[in-house]
Amino acid sequence: MDHVIAPTNSPVVTSHEVTLVPNNSLLTETPEEGRQLAVKMARLIIKLTQPDEEKRKQLRDVYGNDAMMLIAVGQAVATEFATIAAANNYWRK
Amino acid sequence: MDHVIAPTNSPVVTSHEVTLVPNNSLLTETPEEGRQLAVKMARLIIKLTQPDEEKRKQLRDVYGNDAMMLIAVGQAVATEFATIAAANNYWRK
Amino acid sequence: MDHVIAPTNSPVVTSHEVTLVPNNSLLTETPEEGRQLAVKMARLIIKLTQPDEEKRKQLRDVYGNDAMMLIAVGQAVATEFATIAAANNYWRK
Amino acid sequence: MDHVIAPTNSPVVTSHEVTLVPNNSLLTETPEEGRQLAVKMARLIIKLTQPDEEKRKQLRDVYGNDAMMLIAVGQAVATEFATIAAANNYWRK
Amino acid sequence: MDHVIAPTNSPVVTSHEVTLVPNNSLLTETPEEGRQLAVKMARLIIKLTQPDEEKRKQLRDVYGNDAMMLIAVGQAVATEFATIAAANNYWRK
Amino acid sequence: MDHVIAPTNSPVVTSHEVTLVPNNSLLTETPEEGRQLAVKMARLIIKLTQPDEEKRKQLRDVYGNDAMMLIAVGQAVATEFATIAAANNYWRK
Repeated sequence: MDHVIAPTNSPVVTSHEVTLVPNNSLLTETPEEGRQLAVKMARLIIKLTQPDEEKRKQLRDVYGNDAMMLIAVGQAVATEFATIAAANNYWRK
Repeated sequence: MDHVIAPTNSPVVTSHEVTLVPNNSLLTETPEEGRQLAVKMARLIIKLTQPDEEKRKQLRDVYGNDAMMLIAVGQAVATEFATIAAANNYWRK
Repeated sequence: MDHVIAPTNSPVVTSHEVTLVPNNSLLTETPEEGRQLAVKMARLIIKLTQPDEEKRKQLRDVYGNDAMMLIAVGQAVATEFATIAAANNYWRK
Repeated sequence: MDHVIAPTNSPVVTSHEVTLVPNNSLLTETPEEGRQLAVKMARLIIKLTQPDEEKRKQLRDVYGNDAMMLIAVGQAVATEFATIAAANNYWRK
Repeated sequence: MDHVIAPTNSPVVTSHEVTLVPNNSLLTETPEEGRQLAVKMARLIIKLTQPDEEKRKQLRDVYGNDAMMLIAVGQAVATEFATIAAANNYWRK
Repeated sequence: MDHVIAPTNSPVVTSHEVTLVPNNSLLTETPEEGRQLAVKMARLIIKLTQPDEEKRKQLRDVYGNDAMMLIAVGQAVATEFATIAAANNYWRK
């Protein structure tokens, strides 16, 4: 009932078993590290929603070769990065 | 009339019967908990819009195996998380 | 001329005849109420764009059973909620 | 050259001939008026991009009866409203 | 290598040869001018990505007559405008 | 396991081998440079997700000639630019 998004064929994986924010912090030393964190956080939501490693592998081949999906991945990362950049006060000197 | 989005085959479920914000607060101790809240809030909107547990189960199989939908789930969660992170002043130390 | 979005078969309904912001305020007591306001405001735009009750009913059956559309509903609500949460200073204590 | 988005069959309409912000202000008395402004501004971009009244009429019938497009209209309005609400300091009392 | 988005058939056009921000400023006198800037900036990204004038002309006919694409244009402009409006402190008096 | 988004056929490329933020800074002298940075950052996410130069070339031909994808590219760049503009305090004088 609590798992509206999680696929039904993964009963043992709950949101509490997957780390969603590496190091449990949005703060990074540099913009580059912040960008990498944005990518990781976007990936971890996909992992949470589709925990099956094999299926994710197949889906990667799909969106890695689909122009529209590549753009959509970019939009998702951009949104994550906006939050991380604000959290770090945009790494202003 | 009030239920523009709610499916017509669920006359007894109203938005007041589904909790949309767990603990009625956006404030969390850590970024990790904030991220989990973002996932839960995204799921609860889906539950509100499609209250039928069985149908949600079927739809999960659909988007859990569709690359574009997985990316779209990520975009929705990213937007929810942006709000929660700002509410918590980005968990700055 | 003014009704670029409104369907042509509803000449008597103007944006001034549909309340778009319940209680004419974004301020709510709690996050839960803010979330419900976000859902209502998203619904009212759909109602404004498609004022025909019967057609909305048919369309609800469509998106209530379509995984991608459920996710898109979530994205729309998330965007409305971001505004409402900021308006309420995120309901910080 | 300047009209990358404007359709080629409307050489006389330029962005300077269509008012894009009614009253040339984002400030409104109430949230309700702000919401109506958001709808109008979203509509005026569609009008700018497709100036042909007759074609817009046909396209309205299309998206007024398409669930996914109704949701997308909602997303566009939500984004416009976010800006207007911030401009009005969220109409806090 | 640097031109991940630019089409391969336009080797001489680089991002440095297309002006992406007219007048190199986000500041405008009025909201109306800010809105026109948002439209221009959205168009210039399309021009950068597809520099071929003839092809853009053909694509305009496509999206000018497609309801979903018109809405998507509106979403892109709304996002650009949000930035410009914030830059101008929302043209508050 | 860490590479949820990266295609499976590029085992040697990790997110640490691709620079995601040129000059490791969001700060630029002018809005024009900020806009170019937004384009570059959007491109680098596509490069990270599809590291194969030849495939990216093929995909560019696809989205450079697809109206909807051109608009989507615009949305992604707009989101990146919003962050960069805020980081630079909108280049206010």
